[in-house]
Amino acid sequence: MKRLQEKMEQEGRVLSAHVLKVDSFLNHQIDPQLMKEIGEAFAELFQKAGITKIVTLESSGIAPSVMTGLVLGVPVLFARKRQSLTMTDDLLTADVYSFTKETTNRIAVSNTFLTKEDTVLIIDDFLANGQAALGLIDIVQQAGSAIAGIGIVIEKSFQNGRTLLEEKGMRVESLARIDSLQDGHIQFKEEVAK
Amino acid sequence: MKRLQEKMEQEGRVLSAHVLKVDSFLNHQIDPQLMKEIGEAFAELFQKAGITKIVTLESSGIAPSVMTGLVLGVPVLFARKRQSLTMTDDLLTADVYSFTKETTNRIAVSNTFLTKEDTVLIIDDFLANGQAALGLIDIVQQAGSAIAGIGIVIEKSFQNGRTLLEEKGMRVESLARIDSLQDGHIQFKEEVAK
Repeated sequence: MKRLQEKMEQEGRVLSAHVLKVDSFLNHQIDPQLMKEIGEAFAELFQKAGITKIVTLESSGIAPSVMTGLVLGVPVLFARKRQSLTMTDDLLTADVYSFTKETTNRIAVSNTFLTKEDTVLIIDDFLANGQAALGLIDIVQQAGSAIAGIGIVIEKSFQNGRTLLEEKGMRVESLARIDSLQDGHIQFKEEVAK
Repeated sequence: MKRLQEKMEQEGRVLSAHVLKVDSFLNHQIDPQLMKEIGEAFAELFQKAGITKIVTLESSGIAPSVMTGLVLGVPVLFARKRQSLTMTDDLLTADVYSFTKETTNRIAVSNTFLTKEDTVLIIDDFLANGQAALGLIDIVQQAGSAIAGIGIVIEKSFQNGRTLLEEKGMRVESLARIDSLQDGHIQFKEEVAK
């Protein structure tokens, strides 16, 4: 997605060969117009997949997911990283290991919002080692819902997340794919979606 | 806001005289079309206030804020409830006490995204005791930004949040105001916005 790549080049900060900070438009400050265009891009990619629900992870997955859900006309369900007091229903949970933080987070959704009749699009902001996406897949499969695919805003293609997801038979669509972050520069893969 | 009130009556669950659960369209599962209408309502209320930025709190404030930012054409900044690894800039922080959870959370935003030139609209999903909104006000005032007002999706008018905010001279606009939750029934205040 050209506008996303331009924004990454203009505002992204390469902190190391592994870390790109996009806090000015995705992870802390959010650019609503860009999110709208991201939503339209995901909706176009998955428009014929029969999606009935989007599942994402708080907090950075919410904005792109809601914009996608608006175009597709389906609700968005976000997994929580810790149990909240009013989330008293039976929960579907998965443990997600973070390589960057070296911690394991339990993520959870209420089991009342996913059924065997649902076809789910999973959306997340970043794909690196794939652990968050694998946790979301686990939860959706516990509910017995079908998974149409994974929509990723920014993929770090030099890490193994895509491989792990494709080994599970998942369709992975990333709007920007980073080949490397060497020398403070973002090198994109050529074959990006749209 | 009529559509919001109808949704609350149809899908909200009154768990006690103090707790209304709206996990099916706002706090866990999100209704994107309703969020769009909420965004349009906030944008109309504050369209002449010269807003340059929206500030909210993760996670449930993000969806209504992004939809409002889309209409007003301004970015959204969400405060985090715990420090994330890549959030290494200087932080503006405030401590927020939760009466329901009986815990204090430190909320934080990077000081790079708010300036003395900004006029901020603060948005949150619920207003009860006002502690989260007071924390956001504190942060925005530390940055030296002006505050045009507070946009609240659901106000529990039987708690003292609005009074505390108005005592600080804040304009408070709530899209739904709950007078009471007695006997499992939502009693709305008459004079709701729109």
